[in-house]
Amino acid sequence: MCGIVGIVDAGGVSIQLYYALYALQHRGQESAGISTFDGTSLRKFKGQGLVADVFSPAVLKDLKGTAGVGHVRYPTTGSNLPENIQPLNFQFQEHFISVAHNGNLVNTCDIRREYEQAGQIFTTTTDTEIIAKILIQEISTSGSVEDAVQLCMKRMQGSYSVVIMIDGVIYAFRDPLGIKPFCLGKIEHGYIVASESVAIDALGGKFLRDIRPGELIRMDGDGVKCTQIAVAGRCAHCIFEYIYFARADAVIDGVLVYDVRRTIGQKLHEEAPVSADSVCSVPDSGTAYAIGYAERSRIPFVESLMKNRYMGRTFIMPTQKERERAVRIKLNPIPAHLKDKSIVLVDDSIVRGTTSKRIIEMMRDAGAQEIHMRIGSPAIKAPCYLGVDMPTRKELIASDKIEEEVRRSITATSLHHISLDALVKAIGFDREDLCTGCLTGCYPLLIDGETANPRLVNFVDVTFQSRLESFEAETT
Amino acid sequence: MCGIVGIVDAGGVSIQLYYALYALQHRGQESAGISTFDGTSLRKFKGQGLVADVFSPAVLKDLKGTAGVGHVRYPTTGSNLPENIQPLNFQFQEHFISVAHNGNLVNTCDIRREYEQAGQIFTTTTDTEIIAKILIQEISTSGSVEDAVQLCMKRMQGSYSVVIMIDGVIYAFRDPLGIKPFCLGKIEHGYIVASESVAIDALGGKFLRDIRPGELIRMDGDGVKCTQIAVAGRCAHCIFEYIYFARADAVIDGVLVYDVRRTIGQKLHEEAPVSADSVCSVPDSGTAYAIGYAERSRIPFVESLMKNRYMGRTFIMPTQKERERAVRIKLNPIPAHLKDKSIVLVDDSIVRGTTSKRIIEMMRDAGAQEIHMRIGSPAIKAPCYLGVDMPTRKELIASDKIEEEVRRSITATSLHHISLDALVKAIGFDREDLCTGCLTGCYPLLIDGETANPRLVNFVDVTFQSRLESFEAETT
Amino acid sequence: MCGIVGIVDAGGVSIQLYYALYALQHRGQESAGISTFDGTSLRKFKGQGLVADVFSPAVLKDLKGTAGVGHVRYPTTGSNLPENIQPLNFQFQEHFISVAHNGNLVNTCDIRREYEQAGQIFTTTTDTEIIAKILIQEISTSGSVEDAVQLCMKRMQGSYSVVIMIDGVIYAFRDPLGIKPFCLGKIEHGYIVASESVAIDALGGKFLRDIRPGELIRMDGDGVKCTQIAVAGRCAHCIFEYIYFARADAVIDGVLVYDVRRTIGQKLHEEAPVSADSVCSVPDSGTAYAIGYAERSRIPFVESLMKNRYMGRTFIMPTQKERERAVRIKLNPIPAHLKDKSIVLVDDSIVRGTTSKRIIEMMRDAGAQEIHMRIGSPAIKAPCYLGVDMPTRKELIASDKIEEEVRRSITATSLHHISLDALVKAIGFDREDLCTGCLTGCYPLLIDGETANPRLVNFVDVTFQSRLESFEAETT
Amino acid sequence: MCGIVGIVDAGGVSIQLYYALYALQHRGQESAGISTFDGTSLRKFKGQGLVADVFSPAVLKDLKGTAGVGHVRYPTTGSNLPENIQPLNFQFQEHFISVAHNGNLVNTCDIRREYEQAGQIFTTTTDTEIIAKILIQEISTSGSVEDAVQLCMKRMQGSYSVVIMIDGVIYAFRDPLGIKPFCLGKIEHGYIVASESVAIDALGGKFLRDIRPGELIRMDGDGVKCTQIAVAGRCAHCIFEYIYFARADAVIDGVLVYDVRRTIGQKLHEEAPVSADSVCSVPDSGTAYAIGYAERSRIPFVESLMKNRYMGRTFIMPTQKERERAVRIKLNPIPAHLKDKSIVLVDDSIVRGTTSKRIIEMMRDAGAQEIHMRIGSPAIKAPCYLGVDMPTRKELIASDKIEEEVRRSITATSLHHISLDALVKAIGFDREDLCTGCLTGCYPLLIDGETANPRLVNFVDVTFQSRLESFEAETT
Repeated sequence: MCGIVGIVDAGGVSIQLYYALYALQHRGQESAGISTFDGTSLRKFKGQGLVADVFSPAVLKDLKGTAGVGHVRYPTTGSNLPENIQPLNFQFQEHFISVAHNGNLVNTCDIRREYEQAGQIFTTTTDTEIIAKILIQEISTSGSVEDAVQLCMKRMQGSYSVVIMIDGVIYAFRDPLGIKPFCLGKIEHGYIVASESVAIDALGGKFLRDIRPGELIRMDGDGVKCTQIAVAGRCAHCIFEYIYFARADAVIDGVLVYDVRRTIGQKLHEEAPVSADSVCSVPDSGTAYAIGYAERSRIPFVESLMKNRYMGRTFIMPTQKERERAVRIKLNPIPAHLKDKSIVLVDDSIVRGTTSKRIIEMMRDAGAQEIHMRIGSPAIKAPCYLGVDMPTRKELIASDKIEEEVRRSITATSLHHISLDALVKAIGFDREDLCTGCLTGCYPLLIDGETANPRLVNFVDVTFQSRLESFEAETT
Repeated sequence: MCGIVGIVDAGGVSIQLYYALYALQHRGQESAGISTFDGTSLRKFKGQGLVADVFSPAVLKDLKGTAGVGHVRYPTTGSNLPENIQPLNFQFQEHFISVAHNGNLVNTCDIRREYEQAGQIFTTTTDTEIIAKILIQEISTSGSVEDAVQLCMKRMQGSYSVVIMIDGVIYAFRDPLGIKPFCLGKIEHGYIVASESVAIDALGGKFLRDIRPGELIRMDGDGVKCTQIAVAGRCAHCIFEYIYFARADAVIDGVLVYDVRRTIGQKLHEEAPVSADSVCSVPDSGTAYAIGYAERSRIPFVESLMKNRYMGRTFIMPTQKERERAVRIKLNPIPAHLKDKSIVLVDDSIVRGTTSKRIIEMMRDAGAQEIHMRIGSPAIKAPCYLGVDMPTRKELIASDKIEEEVRRSITATSLHHISLDALVKAIGFDREDLCTGCLTGCYPLLIDGETANPRLVNFVDVTFQSRLESFEAETT
Repeated sequence: MCGIVGIVDAGGVSIQLYYALYALQHRGQESAGISTFDGTSLRKFKGQGLVADVFSPAVLKDLKGTAGVGHVRYPTTGSNLPENIQPLNFQFQEHFISVAHNGNLVNTCDIRREYEQAGQIFTTTTDTEIIAKILIQEISTSGSVEDAVQLCMKRMQGSYSVVIMIDGVIYAFRDPLGIKPFCLGKIEHGYIVASESVAIDALGGKFLRDIRPGELIRMDGDGVKCTQIAVAGRCAHCIFEYIYFARADAVIDGVLVYDVRRTIGQKLHEEAPVSADSVCSVPDSGTAYAIGYAERSRIPFVESLMKNRYMGRTFIMPTQKERERAVRIKLNPIPAHLKDKSIVLVDDSIVRGTTSKRIIEMMRDAGAQEIHMRIGSPAIKAPCYLGVDMPTRKELIASDKIEEEVRRSITATSLHHISLDALVKAIGFDREDLCTGCLTGCYPLLIDGETANPRLVNFVDVTFQSRLESFEAETT
Repeated sequence: MCGIVGIVDAGGVSIQLYYALYALQHRGQESAGISTFDGTSLRKFKGQGLVADVFSPAVLKDLKGTAGVGHVRYPTTGSNLPENIQPLNFQFQEHFISVAHNGNLVNTCDIRREYEQAGQIFTTTTDTEIIAKILIQEISTSGSVEDAVQLCMKRMQGSYSVVIMIDGVIYAFRDPLGIKPFCLGKIEHGYIVASESVAIDALGGKFLRDIRPGELIRMDGDGVKCTQIAVAGRCAHCIFEYIYFARADAVIDGVLVYDVRRTIGQKLHEEAPVSADSVCSVPDSGTAYAIGYAERSRIPFVESLMKNRYMGRTFIMPTQKERERAVRIKLNPIPAHLKDKSIVLVDDSIVRGTTSKRIIEMMRDAGAQEIHMRIGSPAIKAPCYLGVDMPTRKELIASDKIEEEVRRSITATSLHHISLDALVKAIGFDREDLCTGCLTGCYPLLIDGETANPRLVNFVDVTFQSRLESFEAETT
């Protein structure tokens, strides 16, 4: 997972890119980067760590220009090489290109092999460089960015929200299934595309609309143009964005994430009511769910696990004892709220089960008598190939255990996961327009060794426009 | 405000000091330091920034020893000199001393002048060095730490929770009025004193009791002894610890802070009911209050201002516009929860009024129709001389304005501060056992140019024990 | 100017690369980098600053592998972009390539345009990336490194000593005119190629021979093979390496640099004898010359300008006064050796004349009566296009001034530059086998707007071997 | 060993202190510090490392004031604690004091015990803090700096050149035996005191004179006053400053160090002539000696060991092999100058003998046939208690070996140390006015377990002036 942003603004973009990345920080804490175009060439700065640590006022001052792109990166295995920090920057035929990408391609190897055989040379191991190669090679042949993006969409299987800057013009496009979120906004003197609407909010801007699956947006000083490059019969919006990944205050594809979570909390009570003294959440990801549960059940919502607000770059000592202590400093149970009490504990999901188990142990040590766990997602049964850093099946506790076995493993008094139907209903889309791969093991794309969703054959049904026409985007 | 901790543990103390300081991080983010005694001399490390940034595993490994003290420092004007970072370390007559202090003395100048005239030389501008000078000079004369602490208590006016390490023995004492919090705990192989019980929790330890006002605690490998050095007729526990400063999960002088706040929230509804669509808090400090308000009023609690969880060391650009944007990235309103709604907005206190005003403006921009502000403390009318970094009267919005004027200034639809009576009742002490200086302008100590609380004449009534006897502390 | 090194050693290469770069530090202080091949992929580390500052023991430990390349970079205008730090690393068709280069191409634009038109995309502004593109594209077509290097030599005009690592095999080649130095050595368990023999000495290795102009060396665990790729009728060894750039203890193309400089010093006395009290040098570059002068003239060599040995990363304050002071702290005149004395002052060259002028002023301020300047090179009259960072003609004091005018400008009592004949004789090559572009304005290659050396038409005469045969190099 | 400096200058002092410390960098590379007085309080900055690394332009800009002191510290065992970095800063009775010290006291323990019994508390383990305590306590009693310095001189046994700043006035004093160097200069708009004259040179200032043994200098905006506080019958100037420690271009107590070394070189030939092909030095410390030897012997001076000029913060790998390699990268033999040759190798001193042995081995490996070692000092036989960081007797190769045994140990063909008589004569003082402790084991002060020089009983003969009178110093 990553966060991306692109901005055009006649008054300079670096500070706005900084604040936008800051708002998207939850999408990636490993590294951050910004590239701007100063009229003649690129200015760029990247580094490992949080946005606030990577950029200083002096650096931002030096990132001159009226267009720019930014990126925050989520830590994944082997990803922490300096050259992999995005945006990636390129030059060809006196053009300067900067590319940032959120998502994951599933046919990387094939494309890479093909381009290498055609003589292309790679300097990173990222999908992003592959996207750049396809685009640049096609642009230098045809001269048309639209054609190049269409070629991308034809060749690339996977999830991709991409922002590109070519010599001061920002292009943004989203894969035909609309897997990752991507939206468009108006700021005081320009425009912005970003992974989540919260980046627009952070600039005091106006959310215009989500970028459509298969659509290309072009922004410069003169305004915004849009072109529908490809059309698919169905969408495959990532369901995990609503469950966990996106910020609660984000609006994704027209749906406020907070309300999805609160509604699920209400449904959790309907599906699995229980009598208890209080409802508490695993902060912060479980809070909106817990508030919904409390609301519907009329059981008071009382915080009983307090989160240390200063997590910073804490390190974990290599002994087991120290690892356990590390959990204690992140989350502190309040004995007065737990002693001899029956508690409804609400969280967004259970992945490996180890954290849930430790939390329940801590709560029991603090005197809790009954702990009824309620989970805002169905059981996670399968890995994600489309950009969420999920563990393998072997590590996923629910991949081979039924709910009762999981309950016993985490030592909860009772356990209930929300039903997939209720979840889908809370989001409001057709089930066929969501990617539920991690919950069902059925994916909207052909993935080696995995089942494709029989109802989602639409992925072969992508239609590419033969005559690409651009329109002025409605921006008021 | 600062956080302090002292630990004795046969198995080494540095990692435990680290985690304890981490749990106390909310009490001070400017700098952090640890000193340990390795059997022959001091090991020490200090630095500016958060605990997680100052200490590395290599540094902690080097901080060998079975006793140690730690400190986190709150930024106050002129405090960021490297030599002022605590603990302060001294040597005299082959003894090694390390001192950490939370609080503020009001007769610093007098004492300093006296000791300078007696030939003492100072290397810092801290109260802590004054405490050290009194202690060390008396110890080297009388040889008795008890006598030295008694001399301290006789000479020093103000708030002081102090932890001292002398050659591997930890001493801890609290001022006779018990202004700042200070508590004692048992950990697996030793003992801990700390500003708040959350530090004990973080180590998986057992809270034993609060250190009594006027009491001296001595801890080493053999156990814990306690000596009542001075007795005052009344206490003057800082009321602002309950309102804002302490962590919600801390238990201070027998009272769980979270419950005080939740109860106040309930009382706020009783004192100033209003009909509204939802209750929302200014996160995180207003949340416990808001939950109480929602609970009692039966108006649903709905988060409508989302906090960015990655604050780090963000910097503020020097223009007005940038300052406003900075608020936006810290706190994001959710329009869907605000549009055309009537909202009860709950916060812990109003200091200058500028933040409240900006938040209300943001909410109105997002469409809120009515904003009924409810505040968990009475109006703050006067400065603090005893350790809370309050602004001057001139900057305090309520120092010369009645509630209606404040309401108009922050543009709220309605405004209510909790009554002092309800607040005191929620805490559960006699009003005479609390310092309410910032709320009333009456202080429990004589302060130049300020009124002393006529009912708190007890501060002249401190009785010093003529025969100091130590007892084994109950530690089971 | 830069320094390059490549090593194969079964026992690991990182520490040896470190020490080799350390020995080549005088060839570039701006940045340093190392890449190694660990059997499956590249390990790499780069940074700005001195070798000793860039690499830590932990970093070197991580640079595992039995083959590796290293680079130190000289600061040139616009060169300090992080992505330009060498070695540059690439991947193609599951191969890993790392390239380091010393020299400068004069037909960069043409080649770059051609490759861009063929679809190649560039990520840096370096010549090195161009070399890499030519090589990799040809290797992936023909599969032959020899053919790829021959294509390089056909396409590239300029100076280039290049070391490439492909999956753990080291290749090294030198341009057909042998402009930059490059040599081969044997170390305990492997082989080394390096810019100067001093890198071999630093490893306690044995100098084998210089790499021949137009030759390709291949080194791996099995030994060293060599292939003559191209043959030119003449060489064009850079004369400035002998005058200033190389370390005095280096042996370049069979000639010990120190002895060239000492011999020139002797000849300077023969060409321009003078009676004086002592001979002194501008340390350290003038010392070998001055020793030769003193030896032949029998005038005692007495150090009269002392150099501060701790230059580090000093910064220059922006005022004129501070800049003057900065010279003072680098070079201190000894009044006792100068007062009322007649001095022969020896330096290697005069570039802008400003430093010479300041030094002479300092010496006069210290009481020197006569200052007879003797210079180890002929007057520098023209820029360098082949890798030495010379200023433009406008800044070169001798580009439009005769010796007497220069003398007056720097305020010396007398001034003599060594004759070109004497210099050439001291080096020992035919004049036609040296590049004297900076001294004569005649270059061994066609350069836009400059005169080509009519006697050096050989550059069009490069013959490329049609059947490339490799031989075992003699390595004993 | 350390370097100290004090400056008063109406136009600001920080940049001048920076350059002065830079010129004194050879006296200490471990840490550096500057304190200035800005009219109301101290500005200060300290750090570990070289002057150029510790101070940035921003830091220097912040060090405002018209008076300041600076210090560079030599690494000694256990000295690298942050709090020991000088200058040390103190406050008493609204005065601000900053102290920097070069030298070593031999009665530290007694004084410290005495002051601790009188109630003083120490925060460092430095002699400097002891000096400060004596001074400040006496000043606060008597109000007279002169009296306080006299008390210092009465109480302190050892070497001490001290610079103190009290509220913007600089005081400087030197021990009655004048062991460490200390001198006074005039700069454009003020005055400077410094360890060596090279600091004055670096500022383009004028050397006025050495500070007299037992003298106190007072400098402020109005000029310089001097007071003779104590008078001793003899001096005990450190002989090792001339041999090794001071910069060759320094003038110490009226004697140019370079000329001492060059004269010794000449005498070395007279005492131990040898027929050889060339004279070479161990750079840089042996060079002036070698030049003298070559001059007198008429054997040509030829550099045959080249020093790497970029030493930086290199680290040594923990294996024997790596340690040997480390010598190789610092010093490179030139085979062409050594092969089959007979060489006179000149160095300043032999301490442990290990370096000499390794150098000779390297030279033999490079083909040298005879290596005649000539040493600019007599054999070093005893430790130093007065400020030079010499090893213990056990580690000193000559402490229990005669010259022939040392020769065999280092494998030289022949070996000669200069005679003490010749050394003393080259310096030009009476032998009784020099401290030769390290060469003779006889010290000018009573040191526990060591012999006092019977002829240097003068150290008990220090006469203290009963009426302290100050005079305007001659400053023109």
